[in-house]
Amino acid sequence: MTPTADLLITNGLVITMDAQNRIFENGAVTIIGDAIAAIGPADKLGATPARETIDACGGIVMPGLVNTHTHAAMTLFRGLADDLPLAEWLNDHIFPAEALLDADKVHAGTLLGCAEMILSGITCFCDMYLFEGAAARAAAAAGMRAVVGEVLYDFPSPNYGPIEKGFDCTRLLIDTWKDDPLVSVAVEPHSPYLCAPDLLTEAANIARDNRVPLVIHLSETRKEVEDVRQKYGATPVGHLAELGVLAPNLLACHCVVLSDEDMDLLAEHDVKVSHNPESNMKLASGIAPVAELIRRGICTGLGTDGCSSNNNLDLFAEMDMAAKLHKASSLDPTVMDAATVLHMATIDGARALGLDRITGSLESGKKADIIVIDTNRPHLTPMYRPESHLVYAVGGSDVTATIVNGRVLMKDRRLLHLDLEKTMADARQIANEIRNG
Amino acid sequence: MTPTADLLITNGLVITMDAQNRIFENGAVTIIGDAIAAIGPADKLGATPARETIDACGGIVMPGLVNTHTHAAMTLFRGLADDLPLAEWLNDHIFPAEALLDADKVHAGTLLGCAEMILSGITCFCDMYLFEGAAARAAAAAGMRAVVGEVLYDFPSPNYGPIEKGFDCTRLLIDTWKDDPLVSVAVEPHSPYLCAPDLLTEAANIARDNRVPLVIHLSETRKEVEDVRQKYGATPVGHLAELGVLAPNLLACHCVVLSDEDMDLLAEHDVKVSHNPESNMKLASGIAPVAELIRRGICTGLGTDGCSSNNNLDLFAEMDMAAKLHKASSLDPTVMDAATVLHMATIDGARALGLDRITGSLESGKKADIIVIDTNRPHLTPMYRPESHLVYAVGGSDVTATIVNGRVLMKDRRLLHLDLEKTMADARQIANEIRNG
Ligand SMILES: [Zn+2]
Ligand SMILES: [Zn+2]
Repeated sequence: MTPTADLLITNGLVITMDAQNRIFENGAVTIIGDAIAAIGPADKLGATPARETIDACGGIVMPGLVNTHTHAAMTLFRGLADDLPLAEWLNDHIFPAEALLDADKVHAGTLLGCAEMILSGITCFCDMYLFEGAAARAAAAAGMRAVVGEVLYDFPSPNYGPIEKGFDCTRLLIDTWKDDPLVSVAVEPHSPYLCAPDLLTEAANIARDNRVPLVIHLSETRKEVEDVRQKYGATPVGHLAELGVLAPNLLACHCVVLSDEDMDLLAEHDVKVSHNPESNMKLASGIAPVAELIRRGICTGLGTDGCSSNNNLDLFAEMDMAAKLHKASSLDPTVMDAATVLHMATIDGARALGLDRITGSLESGKKADIIVIDTNRPHLTPMYRPESHLVYAVGGSDVTATIVNGRVLMKDRRLLHLDLEKTMADARQIANEIRNG
Repeated sequence: MTPTADLLITNGLVITMDAQNRIFENGAVTIIGDAIAAIGPADKLGATPARETIDACGGIVMPGLVNTHTHAAMTLFRGLADDLPLAEWLNDHIFPAEALLDADKVHAGTLLGCAEMILSGITCFCDMYLFEGAAARAAAAAGMRAVVGEVLYDFPSPNYGPIEKGFDCTRLLIDTWKDDPLVSVAVEPHSPYLCAPDLLTEAANIARDNRVPLVIHLSETRKEVEDVRQKYGATPVGHLAELGVLAPNLLACHCVVLSDEDMDLLAEHDVKVSHNPESNMKLASGIAPVAELIRRGICTGLGTDGCSSNNNLDLFAEMDMAAKLHKASSLDPTVMDAATVLHMATIDGARALGLDRITGSLESGKKADIIVIDTNRPHLTPMYRPESHLVYAVGGSDVTATIVNGRVLMKDRRLLHLDLEKTMADARQIANEIRNG
């Protein structure tokens, strides 16, 4: 029989995350090229002749997870320092380690991050860091979907030097990757406290002119809010509003400390939010008012942030944390239910990155970014409601296949297109250099 | 060469959790019979002739984790209902399901819980449930160390009937298991709100007379505190103090809502605490003042609670949660550092159960309750500080060997003495009965 599909995933409980929240109890997905061709019952689609077939063995088939905020290369600093006051942690540990970075090291660290993300079911991530051209190349080499952006701030960068060169660097990145099937570029000013008003407005202009996302750390800590208020007489959100930077293409990461007016502004301008509960908790930034953001209709995705404040890139763990944290802080067990959190980690995350027509759900015509989860495991037995398991019981290590853009990147816990041993060895060698200062 | 050890674990980073917090960078442990014979550098001990050798391959060798509070058979209700108001969750879902239980079902559910715990590095757990004789048999069959206790409350039990029979049942349990190398018995009144003063004092008497632990849910919710205050004119802790029940053998589970005076009383009477952050968060009970309990010198272990409020039994995830939650709630990144949390999950948990001379650390003469963790994985690379990894990055699925009482229960992710497929099939069949009410 002539294959009519390139890839068939069958015999799984298919959770589409589409607008109707369709679920096929025993379903199948066919893929032609980089896109999903059809989704339906296994007894109909399961017999499709295909070049390659993945048997989900009764497990869950769902959209790959979307990590809306990370600094992938910071895998290199995983566990370098923890449990310290923020200033000591940054000044004595993270900044000195970052001073040793170059493009090769960022490439190596990003590749390690990609390996970890692919193995734990993340198919798309949004990255902010130094030497981000190298991060883009690493993501492309790993076969992951990524939105990358060179971090911009007032002081000279070890990569591009003065900020004018930072804008050039960003424009060049946008141009270099504009036709890439996997990697796209965002403009990424670090934060209102490390970026002067001129930097912020110019960054917003570049993003607007090139129709790309603008990504920023926003209202992460009480100290940031105090400092910005003292300097500019407004909250960080209010400050961005006055600069005209709030817009639907803005992805605001963290948003821990928000006033009622801040939330009104975010909603009014259709700003997107990336919620990073584990990082916010570990750095003692606080607890973002996420249930309230969602109640107001603000599109909110999930992010792991970098490995130095997490310390892994497991978005399943992040879902569990997000679902539980806000119940504890509000004393209301009904907030952040499993379905809501699952949307954050998939389709809402894709929407936050402007990629909801590409990824984040299983729909005919969308790119084939798909994961398979083995539910035949003791900690996932029995199974009454799959959504509950995905949020409260599944871990990244339960993912048994990861497909991005129609390409199988991981199967049976083995990475098919990435030299894992070399990637880990490279990271260990760089860690040795960091250890020796 | 004649074997001089029954088991040798070598080529690992050995974290002893002993009083000196000794670590052997390249270490080995020898086991004779059920006990640890020696711990030391691999270049000294690694050549010991042994009947069986486990190569840790450069990973971490450490004490098995101690789960100080669970209801293991509730694996049967994993994900049955979530995200609901407490009363609806209990009355409409958990209680009707529990009404279907019998000794066989509790045996099956406990066995599933044991499978999950062994696979995620727990070697010892404290259980409270119905039909606890069956739970004891399941723990023994699985080869786990366990402290079990029949739950006691004012209303008739589906197991023993009226409370007088509950005391008999408990005495019989104590007697039946008094010489068992793995299973011991505690007296376990459910809580101050489900147990009348007479029940509590009689339970305390039985525990005292038999020199066994007394385990209770205490100060879990605001509602409990209000109800107990209205009924008895005291906080739950104050109420137990007035009844003379506070003592060093009391393990108080949860302790979410505590006054300053409550904490004084717990410290004064050397009461032990079991902290269950994931359950407290998911049920929206609140955030226990654990950093303050530890500051006051109150021995505090970690627990997963039952699978219906977690929804897994991964104590590594619980460590991560405990370390992060209290940083977020106190806005202090230095509280609950990795070392503190690691102590809670091991030696402090053992102390909370009165088993610190038996388990919880690697010391010559102690029982051999040991786990091996594979650190050659992308999400654990690089490794600067092992303690940080154990708390912030390792998951239960990274455990590659679990030894209890000198016996290898799991190796290379395979359970050696438990029929996992049958255990999961049994649980699924019971779940079907529960589904059909
Ligand atoms: Zn960040
Ligand atoms: Zn409990």
